[in-house]
Amino acid sequence: MKLQVAIDRVSLAAAIDLATSLDGIADVIELGTSLVKDYGLIALQDIKATLQKSALLMDVKTIDEGVYEFEKGYEANADILTVMGASDLATLKAVYEVAQKAHKQVLIDLLNMDEADIEPLLIFEDAIFGLHHSHDSANAFDAAGSVKHFHEVFPSIQHIAVAGGIDLEQVQKLSADGIAEVAIVGGKIAGADDPVAAGKQFKGAL
Amino acid sequence: MKLQVAIDRVSLAAAIDLATSLDGIADVIELGTSLVKDYGLIALQDIKATLQKSALLMDVKTIDEGVYEFEKGYEANADILTVMGASDLATLKAVYEVAQKAHKQVLIDLLNMDEADIEPLLIFEDAIFGLHHSHDSANAFDAAGSVKHFHEVFPSIQHIAVAGGIDLEQVQKLSADGIAEVAIVGGKIAGADDPVAAGKQFKGAL
Repeated sequence: MKLQVAIDRVSLAAAIDLATSLDGIADVIELGTSLVKDYGLIALQDIKATLQKSALLMDVKTIDEGVYEFEKGYEANADILTVMGASDLATLKAVYEVAQKAHKQVLIDLLNMDEADIEPLLIFEDAIFGLHHSHDSANAFDAAGSVKHFHEVFPSIQHIAVAGGIDLEQVQKLSADGIAEVAIVGGKIAGADDPVAAGKQFKGAL
Repeated sequence: MKLQVAIDRVSLAAAIDLATSLDGIADVIELGTSLVKDYGLIALQDIKATLQKSALLMDVKTIDEGVYEFEKGYEANADILTVMGASDLATLKAVYEVAQKAHKQVLIDLLNMDEADIEPLLIFEDAIFGLHHSHDSANAFDAAGSVKHFHEVFPSIQHIAVAGGIDLEQVQKLSADGIAEVAIVGGKIAGADDPVAAGKQFKGAL
């Protein structure tokens, strides 16, 4: 299983520091939506060049204007970009095509979607499907349980990522189950007193 | 009816030029999602001070982390911010509360939503409801017809904005019907050879 570390709600300078210090510890470094909307893709485009090992995801959360946003995101040197599953199917098809042509990846964010609405998205075989609990929801989220259930409902989906309050115990469960391809950890690493030590601890638990 | 002009997919300098030259012609100047994601809210925060008359909308398309994004957007001097209707209800409640406290406005973007899913959103009485056709959809969009139908289904909704390929003829129809509060025009004004002349022509048609 891969470890993705999400960096969010920090200054641009702090984001660059965090990204470079977590390079090679995180398999994927995520520049969260807050960084995209606060600073913009143009300001983020040089971060990829500072990374030697980790892939870079920019959480653009595209929901319309798919070609424009994905072309801009890959130009800003993202390896992986995100699109909302709740988008028009035309938007999903458009970004998938941009990703395939660029030999890059797309993560479909399933936030707030019913299973019936996920069904038409199974055509996007190479996409990563992101199980993602709303930050604003007060409900508790069982990451490992959600991945198990999702895999039972959609056994054909190959690439599953999961995010939402994931701690060390959840990472161990996810790793033992062997279904999810990516565990996305945010504050428990990026917000730790020692993010490098925390990152290594999570990495060791995989 | 109010005229909202959307500025999108241009450089920051061109966006500032367009915004200042359309000040007072457009009732609302919209800084589109492309500007938010390309340049970031921090780079857009000084635009409001250049406007004497027009209100400023930033099309942030929030779909999670409602409080954070809306606080940042209003700090960047937006009068109106947008949230996706497809968000978790907790996100919609959160941004609505931030807007009410700040005495500012929220536009709920109904992109790609079924009528059944719109029903729970009727509690947001002061919100502007945005009928919004996906840019990526190949289907034609009848703005005036859509507004009429929407008003029949949801007669209690007071504030309706409509966007999607709106030309002079559609603006005249919308104005004659008197249902929509805001007509959102993009390329037909911002992309015209003479945006000021085009803006005045649309304004005259209201």
